[in-house]
Amino acid sequence: MTLDGFVKYMSFPLSNYLQYGVLRLFSKGIETSYISDGITIWFPWNVKIGKRSSLNQGVIIDGYGHVSIGEGVRVASYVNINPADHQYDDPEKMIVDKGFVVEEVIIGDDVAVGCGTIINKGVRMGKGSVIGSGAVLTKDIPGYSIAAGVPCRMIKKELNGSGEKDHTAC
Amino acid sequence: MTLDGFVKYMSFPLSNYLQYGVLRLFSKGIETSYISDGITIWFPWNVKIGKRSSLNQGVIIDGYGHVSIGEGVRVASYVNINPADHQYDDPEKMIVDKGFVVEEVIIGDDVAVGCGTIINKGVRMGKGSVIGSGAVLTKDIPGYSIAAGVPCRMIKKELNGSGEKDHTAC
Amino acid sequence: MTLDGFVKYMSFPLSNYLQYGVLRLFSKGIETSYISDGITIWFPWNVKIGKRSSLNQGVIIDGYGHVSIGEGVRVASYVNINPADHQYDDPEKMIVDKGFVVEEVIIGDDVAVGCGTIINKGVRMGKGSVIGSGAVLTKDIPGYSIAAGVPCRMIKKELNGSGEKDHTAC
Repeated sequence: MTLDGFVKYMSFPLSNYLQYGVLRLFSKGIETSYISDGITIWFPWNVKIGKRSSLNQGVIIDGYGHVSIGEGVRVASYVNINPADHQYDDPEKMIVDKGFVVEEVIIGDDVAVGCGTIINKGVRMGKGSVIGSGAVLTKDIPGYSIAAGVPCRMIKKELNGSGEKDHTAC
Repeated sequence: MTLDGFVKYMSFPLSNYLQYGVLRLFSKGIETSYISDGITIWFPWNVKIGKRSSLNQGVIIDGYGHVSIGEGVRVASYVNINPADHQYDDPEKMIVDKGFVVEEVIIGDDVAVGCGTIINKGVRMGKGSVIGSGAVLTKDIPGYSIAAGVPCRMIKKELNGSGEKDHTAC
Repeated sequence: MTLDGFVKYMSFPLSNYLQYGVLRLFSKGIETSYISDGITIWFPWNVKIGKRSSLNQGVIIDGYGHVSIGEGVRVASYVNINPADHQYDDPEKMIVDKGFVVEEVIIGDDVAVGCGTIINKGVRMGKGSVIGSGAVLTKDIPGYSIAAGVPCRMIKKELNGSGEKDHTAC
């Protein structure tokens, strides 16, 4: 089930509330109404999005393998969150006939994800982390760090000058 | 000519059949109905897509330089297939006035292309190859291999443990 | 204010003129009608686009920090132009409560930007430069050069065989 039908590509002022309304029919875990147009959320009942988080144009979240997004998270345009991957272990079958490998994606509070970034299965992003645009994440990102690139690597630790750390998040 | 008009951004259940129906009016070479919304296929009469293949949200295929996609191929969201590039050899003209260089893109059977991947002119992808998300392909990919990155490089050969090889495909 | 409402996702032949018409209501600086569908231009009154330039499907331009695009510029599908970034200097506040850092993006005449490319704040691209698909720009690109990658780096200088140079542009 996806955010489908009439509301997906509506881009009027306030149409984000319609998109939110449709999503809420399927998932009580989606607590933000900053939902832009052109967004797909597969299996929304497996997706949690905290308060004050935002999804920009064209974001795709596949809830098949569960996705948890904290509060105040900025998800920029065309970000893909994919907690499911094809299973490649049976060489006798075609890919379309193989199963999936899933692992939950967990994004902490106060995270900023740059546009066009792709977040693959099992990735956990710590509180306060910042991801550059166009990154491809295959591994965890510690809290309060900056990361970027393909594949995504940490380029600055301890973003938070206050000395607060949250590396426990991943 | 593109997959235009009323059906392009329809995202109701079963609207993929409408999108398929419109495409079939222009191209007998498109044999799959797994056609998501937001998809553009330029010059569809130059595009072949085999049975059981799927195109996800926002895929753009430019048929100007011909594109051939095999059977059971998974094309993830926001993949761009560009068999045409601008010609840069006449320094006296602006780019908009220059011609194009085209070379067919050929994707074998049973290939998986990750989301956001860009496939440039002349690239051939062998049967059973798997391309990571966010890759930019400028060279051929052998069959039954895994490749990823910008630019895309092979990261694992002989995906198929059965010993079957299909390097002849490219 | 964005290119919103009924016209954004129209994809009929000639609907680009409707999109152009709506944009012109908000900005006299947009002088081209090659405006594809699925495009967002935030703060269009801060955006200039010269004659004969084109925006393909799904392009997003954030005019908050001002964007200037010259004449005859090809902006391919899913390009993001972001002259604004979050401010990260106050560790006591959440990102959603922090301000923005902005710096104008300037794209010279006769530039080609490949699909899926992301152009970040303050980047200036010289006349005649060519950017490969899937690039992430964080620094200036000299005129008549070819650049690509994540992050984007120059891979060929002096594209223009005529000896003409325009490095002054950046």
